[in-house]
Order: sequence, then C-alpha cells, then structure tokens
Amino acid sequence: MSEILPTETQSARDSAFRAIDPSLGEAIEPAFPIADAATVADTCRRADAAFDLFRELDPDARASLLEAIATEIEALGDPLILRAMSESGLPRARLEGERARTTGQLRLFARLLRQGRWAGVTIDSAQPDRVPLPRADLRQRRIALGPVAVFGASNFPLAFSVAGGDTASALAAGCPVVVKGHPAHPGTSALVARAIHAALDAQGLPQGVFALLQGPGTDLGAALAADPHIKAVGFTGSRAGGLALLEIAQHRPEPIPVFAEMSSVNPVLLFPGALAARAAALGAAYVGSLTLGAGQFCTNPGLVLGIDGADLEQFTTAAAEALAGTPSQTMLSGGIHAAYERGVTALSSHDAVEQLAQGVASEGCNRGRAALLRTDAASFLADPVLSHEVFGAASLIVRCRDMAELRMVIERIEGQLTITLQIDDSDLSDAAALMPLLERKAGRILANGWPTGVEVSPAMVHGGPFPATSDSRTTSVGTAAIERFLRPVCYQDLPDALLPKPVKHDNPLALPRLVDGEPG
Amino acid sequence: MSEILPTETQSARDSAFRAIDPSLGEAIEPAFPIADAATVADTCRRADAAFDLFRELDPDARASLLEAIATEIEALGDPLILRAMSESGLPRARLEGERARTTGQLRLFARLLRQGRWAGVTIDSAQPDRVPLPRADLRQRRIALGPVAVFGASNFPLAFSVAGGDTASALAAGCPVVVKGHPAHPGTSALVARAIHAALDAQGLPQGVFALLQGPGTDLGAALAADPHIKAVGFTGSRAGGLALLEIAQHRPEPIPVFAEMSSVNPVLLFPGALAARAAALGAAYVGSLTLGAGQFCTNPGLVLGIDGADLEQFTTAAAEALAGTPSQTMLSGGIHAAYERGVTALSSHDAVEQLAQGVASEGCNRGRAALLRTDAASFLADPVLSHEVFGAASLIVRCRDMAELRMVIERIEGQLTITLQIDDSDLSDAAALMPLLERKAGRILANGWPTGVEVSPAMVHGGPFPATSDSRTTSVGTAAIERFLRPVCYQDLPDALLPKPVKHDNPLALPRLVDGEPG
Repeated sequence: MSEILPTETQSARDSAFRAIDPSLGEAIEPAFPIADAATVADTCRRADAAFDLFRELDPDARASLLEAIATEIEALGDPLILRAMSESGLPRARLEGERARTTGQLRLFARLLRQGRWAGVTIDSAQPDRVPLPRADLRQRRIALGPVAVFGASNFPLAFSVAGGDTASALAAGCPVVVKGHPAHPGTSALVARAIHAALDAQGLPQGVFALLQGPGTDLGAALAADPHIKAVGFTGSRAGGLALLEIAQHRPEPIPVFAEMSSVNPVLLFPGALAARAAALGAAYVGSLTLGAGQFCTNPGLVLGIDGADLEQFTTAAAEALAGTPSQTMLSGGIHAAYERGVTALSSHDAVEQLAQGVASEGCNRGRAALLRTDAASFLADPVLSHEVFGAASLIVRCRDMAELRMVIERIEGQLTITLQIDDSDLSDAAALMPLLERKAGRILANGWPTGVEVSPAMVHGGPFPATSDSRTTSVGTAAIERFLRPVCYQDLPDALLPKPVKHDNPLALPRLVDGEPG
Repeated sequence: MSEILPTETQSARDSAFRAIDPSLGEAIEPAFPIADAATVADTCRRADAAFDLFRELDPDARASLLEAIATEIEALGDPLILRAMSESGLPRARLEGERARTTGQLRLFARLLRQGRWAGVTIDSAQPDRVPLPRADLRQRRIALGPVAVFGASNFPLAFSVAGGDTASALAAGCPVVVKGHPAHPGTSALVARAIHAALDAQGLPQGVFALLQGPGTDLGAALAADPHIKAVGFTGSRAGGLALLEIAQHRPEPIPVFAEMSSVNPVLLFPGALAARAAALGAAYVGSLTLGAGQFCTNPGLVLGIDGADLEQFTTAAAEALAGTPSQTMLSGGIHAAYERGVTALSSHDAVEQLAQGVASEGCNRGRAALLRTDAASFLADPVLSHEVFGAASLIVRCRDMAELRMVIERIEGQLTITLQIDDSDLSDAAALMPLLERKAGRILANGWPTGVEVSPAMVHGGPFPATSDSRTTSVGTAAIERFLRPVCYQDLPDALLPKPVKHDNPLALPRLVDGEPG
C-alpha cells in the first residue's frame, strides 16, 4: 500500500504505530509516525499563518476548494474503500455509502457558501440627523473563529473523520483545520488527507489550511486542544473523551469552545395504539435499526419504553426472535469490542435486568453479538447505570406501568440526540401531551421511523442537551454546523476602503443582507 | 419610599440589607430581604413551571409583554429616576437617557419577535422517491433554552440590570428570567421588578416568568447558577466574577452556557495622519469619552497607542489639559471607588509609568478623579499588569516607536470589545494592513469615533474574544443577543397534529421560512 506511505520517515519504532485489522486482530502495514509536541506546535503555527488568507477568500473560492476535495476523494478510488474496510471491519457497501455522504456533504457546504446567508451581513444605516444622538453606520458580518482542531470519530472513518462533517463545516466557515486522526484508521486518514492536500495545491492555497496529525495516545489530542493557535474543537466520541477535552479547553489562558457530540441512548417510545396495530412489525424493524452497522451509531436506539401488557410482550417476542437470528458483526476495534462486551455483561448481570436474546455467536475476532435486555421502569429509575450508553448493538426495553410512569422515565433521563415516537392516530393526544417534555430532552424528534440514518441537510439537528452534546445550541450534521465556527464582527463608520468585501457599500460579493432589520 | 417596600417581611436584621448612597456613604431605607437558598430553589422551580407555557406563546404575545414592561417602567415615573440617582450616584440626565434605552430595547425585541426570523424555521421537504434512500420531512425551529439567570450590572442600573439587555433578550427568546439584582441598587431593582410583574399580570401570564432575587453576597449568585432548573447565565461584570460563574456552570452535573461580558481596555489607535491633522482636538475628544459617566463603561477607552513624536506629544498635552479640568464624579459604589483608587495607584507607582494628569479633586464621598498615565511600548509589553482594565476614568497612553511596534502591542493584548482607529486618508494603507489583526482581537472596530455609546440595533456587536466575553460568538447588546438563548430542534416526519405552530404545514404564525435551502 505504497500510496498511503507517510511522507515523513520514522526515527524509531516507538515513534510510529500501525492500524490493527479488527477482523483479524493483526497489524496492517505501513507504520505511521506519531506526531510529537513539536510537530503539534509547528502545525498549529502554520494553520494560524494560513488563517487570514483563507478566511478572506471569496465564498466561491472556498466553495471550489470543498468541491475539489470531494473530487480528489473520489479519485482515490477503490484503495480508499479497501483500506477503510480493513481498518474498520465495516463492509464495502456501507463504506461506499459513507464516501458518497462525505463528498455530498462537502458539496452541500459549497452550495451554502455561494448562497451567502452564512456570512450574516447586517447593516444599520447611518442616521446623522437622529435626535438626541446621531446613529453611526454599523455593519456586521461573521468571520471564522481561527484554526479548528477536529477529532476524527472511530465509527465514521470517512463521514466523521478527516474530511467529515466537522472538517467540512470548519473549512466552509474559513477556519484552517488540524485533524487528530482516529488511531483505528490511520491509513484511511492518510489517504483522505492526501486528497485534501492535492485539492489545496490545485486551488493554489497554502498547505497550512489543513493538516493531519496521527498517534495512538491521548497526549497528542491534549496538546492540540491546548495549543494557543487553536480557537475551537470539534469532537465526536465518548463522554469521557469529550469531557476531558472540555476541561482542557476551559482552563487554557484563553478558553475556547468545544463542540463535543458524546453520549445518547436515543429512546424509542412505543405508544399503545401503534403497538396494538403492529407490534410484531415494530419489533422486527427496531432490531433492523439496532443492529445496523453493529449498532455503532450515535443515534442507535439503545432504550425502548412501552406500557406493559400483551402488545408490548408481542413486540418484545418479535424483537427477540429477530435479534436471535442476526449474525455477529466485526466491531470497529478491539477496544470498542471489549467495552461493548463489558457493557452488555454489566447490564445482563444486573439484578433488575433480564437478557432476552443474543445475536448468533460466530468465530472470529472482535465479533459483536447483538443483545436485547429488559427491565421495569421502577428499576430503571432506581439505578442511573441502566441509562448509560453501551456503544454497540445492545438495547434495553423498559416496561412502564402506564403513561405517567413512562413520562417519569423521560423526565429523569439525560439529554439525547433523538427521541422516536411509534404512534397511531389514536396515540396523538398522549403524544401531544409529551411533546414539550421531548423538546426539552432531545435535538430531534421522529415519528414512525428510526433514529439511525441522519440526513445531511439544512433542517437537520444532530445535537441536543448535555450529555448528547456539550452545546445544545448547535448541530454537528447539516449546514447549520457552520455556525459553530463563526463569530460576529461589527464595523462602525469605517471608510469603504477599510471594510472587508462582505460589508462594502457596493456589495461586491452580492451577499444577501439584512438592512435596517429587513432583508434587502 | 413606601412604593419600593419589599413585599416579604424581614425575619431578622442579618436577613436584610440596605443600599448605600455612594455620594453620602449612608444607608438608604428600606431594607430588602436577602434571598436564602430555599428561596432560590423555589424561585427556579416556579420559573421552570412557567417555561413550557411561556416559550410556546405566539411571538406576538411575547412581543406584547415586552411592550407592556416598557410601558410599566415608564409609568414608574420620577421615583424610579430619583431612586436610581441616590443608589448609583449617576446624574438625572444619564438615567433618563438610560431609561429610554431600556424601554427602547424592549420594544426593539418586540419588533424582532413579530418579524419572526429569530425562530429559524427551516424545512426540508420529504423526497419519498429519492434513491437510494427516501428523504424524510424535516422541520427545524429554535426553542428557548429554559430559565435564565441574569446578573444585574452595577454600571447600568436600568439598561443592564433587572429589565436590561440580558433580560429583554432572554424573555424574547421565551426563557423565564431569574435576576440576581446588583446589591448597589436594590431599590431601583425592586421598582423595575414591580413593573415587570404588573406587565405579566396585565397580560395574564404566570408570575413565574420573572423573579428578582436580592442579596449582598456571592452565595446567592452561586446558588442560582448551580440550580438545576437554570439553563443559561447572562452576566456583565468583573473578570473574576465572570470566571467564578463559568467554573460553577461548567462543573454542574449538567453544564450550562455562561454569557459573561467581563473585561476590555478598548484600545484607541492614533494614526500619524490623523494626529498630524488634529492632535489637539483628538486629545480633548478622547478625554470626553474617557470621563463620561466617571469612566464606568465596558467600552471606556483605557488604552491609547500612538507613534512617538511631536504630534503624539501635542495630543497628550491637550488630553492632559482637558483631563486636569474635569471635575471628579461620584462613582457607583464604595467598592468600585476603592478598586479604582487601588488600580490608579498601582499604575502611577509603576516604575515604567508616569502620571500625566489627574482630574480636579473635590470634597465628598467616593469621588473618582480621572487619571491620565503614560508608558512606552517596550515597558507595556514587559508587564501584563499594564494591560489590565482599571474600571473608571483612568487611561494609559502607550508610546510606540513605529507601526511595527504598535502592531506588536496589538498582537500581544487580549481580546477586546472594541478597537478604535483615528485615521485620515493618508493612514488608510497602514490601517488596512492592521485590519485582519484587529478583527481577530475585537468584536467592534470603529473609525473616527469613540467606543462609548453602544447602539442597540441589529448590526451591533457588544462582545469579543476572551476575556472581553466568555463566548465571542455572541453579543449582549442588539437584537442578535436573542440567539444566545435559543437552540434548534428538528422534527422528522411528525404528523401535523404534533408539530408546534412555527413548523406546522400551513404556517399559522406566518413566520419566514427557509424551504429546501431557499427563502420561501
């Protein structure tokens, strides 16, 4: 795999690391150099040096860069898919879909840039004759925050990694990006980084706009989040990892925002009417969502709430049957597989929990067997451990006595990325009564679907109250993700010669503007 | 002053406190009860209980509330002005102007609510026939975060206190507000709170939408920021105070955002052309801005940078002459006056600083004398203490050898609310070269004006990089302040009966919408 050989030479064995094929438990060549502290500092300095030029590019030029990156990723061809397969254990179809999502996301941000509303241009005209005091000419636009540190996620080696959603939205905003690649897929990361560097070259832009740093430990990420040139962090991963980055970021001499997407069990609420009409079908469909991609999604339905009774029993039986027939799947890494096994064991050995079904066992390394477990609402409420996320295809059905108890469970759970309603017409008044509570708890509310499969579009919200994310006012999927990396600046009575293009009097970039409070 | 007697009775002397007239150093009747921990908890519970109703009011109803509050504040009449004068030491004209600003701000947010863009309604139409996967119907809107704790500022007893900018923007967003009144002006606070309660009554809204808690210590504020029902904090005050609130908010079981406006010295850059043309006039105008309101503004020009030479000398001489003739002014409180005196003494006794002029001394309590000091850039760069804010009418002129040294000073200073340029046509190329650096350092850049006097309008940015604020992505003045208190929620394939009004299919609130990425 000479095409992913790192350009830097290794000085010693312990300054390099290799990916592990999770399906074999074996190291994959080549070795990748581990970025040391000096490399982090130098990389961030170069990102800062590229910042002023990059942020002031015309929107069309940054859009062209994003499109060029998409094209270069496609040009990597099958070697990218093959390498990602071997590093992640994910199947070809999934990775091809993920590649399409990655390039589609880059092109969506390119369109957004050309539409121009992201710049938030707002103009208050001067009122020299106003009494008692004249009003100055005030012009606001949004500028990029500065270099952004992006932490690649293990579970989306393409769409939430080196050129994923955080990188696309930060570059779109005008922020240089330094990616800390996830150590599970360094070869995939290196290939995509090469595509980005090729696109920068082709567009005549400085290489400092983007960098990939790699390494297996946590020192690298900690140094990156602490670097004074870094002005924001994008992270998708564990709660512990997100909180550690927050602690670093908040206690720097200059604190910076961290956009961490961390932990969610994505409750599914089974309403009585829906259960009465289609309990068995719901049970099967639920297992489909649960076991997709070995359950390794942030939006995996890890918690099901229903009213105890024959219909819930039928749902449960159907789910258990479907799940018992699902083949085990290779998980993303040995570490993730081990954590999954520990989580399932903790649940299944809990006094108040019964294990209903397990997926088919199979030979092979790091194979995750789906797990279906059940408890009752009183037990669930009594032990917070039962509400913690187990990353993988494990899910807990919670039997509630009635709607009042179901509501109590929702009141007590932490913030979520999603909450899903399975409803029929007869459930509408019960569901309507819950809606205000659901809005407080989640970033996205779905009806009669499943939370996995997150659309990349303007209306999407992939976010939610803590601990789903560290900042519920944002999303990490969809075009609104760009807003995380922008801040407003106001120009008061500046001569036109000093105004940046977006707020110049003749509007040379033809950006949409809000003038005196109205679009115009 | 029976009209501001608190409604609760005092149980003991140490459970109440009185305002001090800073011009006399004497307590003013009546005593106000100190909110204890149980009161904080109960108040926040009631705010939470009012939240769901309040946030889902039609925008017009919340607009009417804001307008009613403005009317009720006006109806308080002269007793409000008189009480504020005695509690703050500020003169009548200033407080009448501040009252107009406060009511104007409430009415501006009312207009914003009726325009509807704040709701951020974004709709992605369903695409049932899309391949490979259909697209769901996705509808995004922004909802209020929850009850907000607002900390009244000492220096704006009306416009940044009980019904000030933070309260107006939080109420506009749909957040109930619990104000921790500044202990320097409890009577002013109580009067304004009464106006808000009267408006809530008149609009038939629950009293839980607003509460004022009072007390002289820091325990009250700490308990408020830690209360689990509080979902965000708005603060204007000292760096130490803001950082203390951040620490509390970040280490709650559910961390919450703190929008703290803290510390800024608001550099003024004197360019050679402007100095050559009008050094003396600039010196006099600078002193006018510096001494306005005894210098007790967040945007007070506390730092002046110029190139050493005869013109800067002329500016300095004119400033020193003007300042030497300014009368001392009563400062807001004994604590603020004492801190100011300490700050000026620390500067004037610094080896590298010379004191150029002081305002006129006078008899009386807590009179702040303006102070003009000077140092050179090398000394300024050598000691960070010289760049710290001294709250009050003290300012430091820094002589720079050349533009390169001036740039170095700006590179090294922390984030600012404002940076002001004094320029002529001949300075444009020097100023243009500095613009990218200035944008990194400040939320607002002004030319040929003075930073004091902050317009309340859509394009205003009263914010900036740390430590000017704790979140540079926001503003605490102007209509964009509402965005601090909103978060997006996405509804996927929900039946119309479950959709909240802003995203219902027939758009009953007639809100502006972004449909499939375009206004429509």
